[in-house]
Amino acid sequence: MEPIPAPAQERLLRLMRVLEQQRFPEPQRTLTSNQAAALTGWPGHTIRKDISYLEGDFGGVGGYEPERLIRGIRQALGLDRRRRVCVVGLGRLGSAYLNVRAFEPEEFELIAGFDSNVNRVEILRSPVPLYPAYKMGEVIRRFSVEMALLCVPEEAAQGAAQRLAEAGIRGILNFAPVILALPPDVSVRNVYVADELRALAVKMGP
Amino acid sequence: MEPIPAPAQERLLRLMRVLEQQRFPEPQRTLTSNQAAALTGWPGHTIRKDISYLEGDFGGVGGYEPERLIRGIRQALGLDRRRRVCVVGLGRLGSAYLNVRAFEPEEFELIAGFDSNVNRVEILRSPVPLYPAYKMGEVIRRFSVEMALLCVPEEAAQGAAQRLAEAGIRGILNFAPVILALPPDVSVRNVYVADELRALAVKMGP
Repeated sequence: MEPIPAPAQERLLRLMRVLEQQRFPEPQRTLTSNQAAALTGWPGHTIRKDISYLEGDFGGVGGYEPERLIRGIRQALGLDRRRRVCVVGLGRLGSAYLNVRAFEPEEFELIAGFDSNVNRVEILRSPVPLYPAYKMGEVIRRFSVEMALLCVPEEAAQGAAQRLAEAGIRGILNFAPVILALPPDVSVRNVYVADELRALAVKMGP
Repeated sequence: MEPIPAPAQERLLRLMRVLEQQRFPEPQRTLTSNQAAALTGWPGHTIRKDISYLEGDFGGVGGYEPERLIRGIRQALGLDRRRRVCVVGLGRLGSAYLNVRAFEPEEFELIAGFDSNVNRVEILRSPVPLYPAYKMGEVIRRFSVEMALLCVPEEAAQGAAQRLAEAGIRGILNFAPVILALPPDVSVRNVYVADELRALAVKMGP
């Protein structure tokens, strides 16, 4: 199977999200590439090309079947298996994510939180077990945690990221406003509120 | 001037971010479209086409001048004027954003926080003034606040968003895992940790 280029992967991910958000009254209802174009803002031919990377059949001549398409995208993008996630740094931001119901239970399982402040680990109320930071390596290996939300202060981010990488974490969602330097086998995605505000400002127009 | 299509706007925004993150030792150093392609992962011809939407001159035959390019993108995307921002909902997540130094001071100015819990408003330490939620309309109008970070619980999000829209807010960064129904003149950008984790998982590969 042909590898899917990164921009097509990104579009497929967003198409999947848009399809999930649309509530199709009947599961067999079809979606044409023009409808997909209206939902996403991309040209129909781009969408057809992106879908051509997927394996399988997504409906007849009238259009695609949304539910099948969602499953096909999930499979092609490797989102069809569940990954374990931890939160590192339990200040305001990190502790907010401990309680977020937004983790898709099918795809991600939040299993632990870590903080260097032992007192905080003991006091904080949490739906998942919390551990002092020195247990990070042990817990990550024992439970095969693959991904981490990095919510420590800016000055602690690089050090914590390195320890996560050494413990076997392969993906870091970085909320600290710093560029992390990590081995190439660790993927990083930065979530900066300033970038989100910029994208929103662009959408708003001048 | 030709309007810039939304996908090109998104790429230009990311190119600007990548250029900002690169530290060019000398400001006059140039960047070729091949270098830009290596940094972003998009084909050189796409980048050249995107840059062709911008007004102005971005360097000679040897390549673009990064600083000029950043200014050109900022101007074309309407990011060259400062916008006022507020935080609505001061639970863990919202109060975390009160203290975030990640707001680009040139582009965004955080000026107020709101919460329906008057006690919380009085107790919370914050670098910006906090107000009880019933003052939202008044404060937003008085200070011409344009954008809001919506950090209230899921069940309160739609109501709060409507009140923000009525007060004149034109852009909402929505952290609640719900789809907001708002008038078309209000732009919404959803920040869902699950979506970020998905994008990270795709980057990590199977």
